[in-house]
Amino acid sequence: MDPDAVAKAFVDHYYSTFDANRAGLGNLYQEGSMLTFEGQKIQGSQSIVAKLASLPFQQCKHNITTVDCQPSGAGGVLVFVSGTLQLAGEQHALKFSQMFHLMPTPQGSFYVLNDIFRLNYA
Amino acid sequence: MDPDAVAKAFVDHYYSTFDANRAGLGNLYQEGSMLTFEGQKIQGSQSIVAKLASLPFQQCKHNITTVDCQPSGAGGVLVFVSGTLQLAGEQHALKFSQMFHLMPTPQGSFYVLNDIFRLNYA
Repeated sequence: MDPDAVAKAFVDHYYSTFDANRAGLGNLYQEGSMLTFEGQKIQGSQSIVAKLASLPFQQCKHNITTVDCQPSGAGGVLVFVSGTLQLAGEQHALKFSQMFHLMPTPQGSFYVLNDIFRLNYA
Repeated sequence: MDPDAVAKAFVDHYYSTFDANRAGLGNLYQEGSMLTFEGQKIQGSQSIVAKLASLPFQQCKHNITTVDCQPSGAGGVLVFVSGTLQLAGEQHALKFSQMFHLMPTPQGSFYVLNDIFRLNYA
């Protein structure tokens, strides 16, 4: 298992799916998955996707600045991302940081056990 | 185990120790611990403390803006921090994000298995 390859593939898939069709992110999470979004804690795939779908903007585009990763033990991978989020109709992009804890599935793929998102206000 | 209490106690201890005596952080890491500092990967307690000690400033003060945490499985805790770093003699504070993966020790404490640090340039 190459953590860098896993992290790169995940980041590409996650943000392109987010920007095209947020509802399509549901199969990346499981019932025990947790999202902390700007301090709000949400658990479970359905609740997480409902939260992402409810965000008060339609079109957006993530631009990734840095991706760091480390193995976390038990076959897991930690992914730490920084970048900007451009919302349709807004002049300035928002800076964000986000971390994911990916865990292996029996099928040889990965799911998101932990997801923490924060905007970095200037 | 209350992840919020663990995270708060860790963050208080880590940054107050960093700002007072960086060399004192060594006992928070073990041989399998990893630090990614601005993209540079360093493994093991001794190498990590040597890296922190070599940073090109003497006095600094971390101010913490947000602390998020989640249980990571197997008794671990993920801690996600944002804040600013004020260096002595510098006019402007630097914004940073950092994540820690804490794992339990047999003695009932925690050590840092994973540590990823990034400055958030404006």
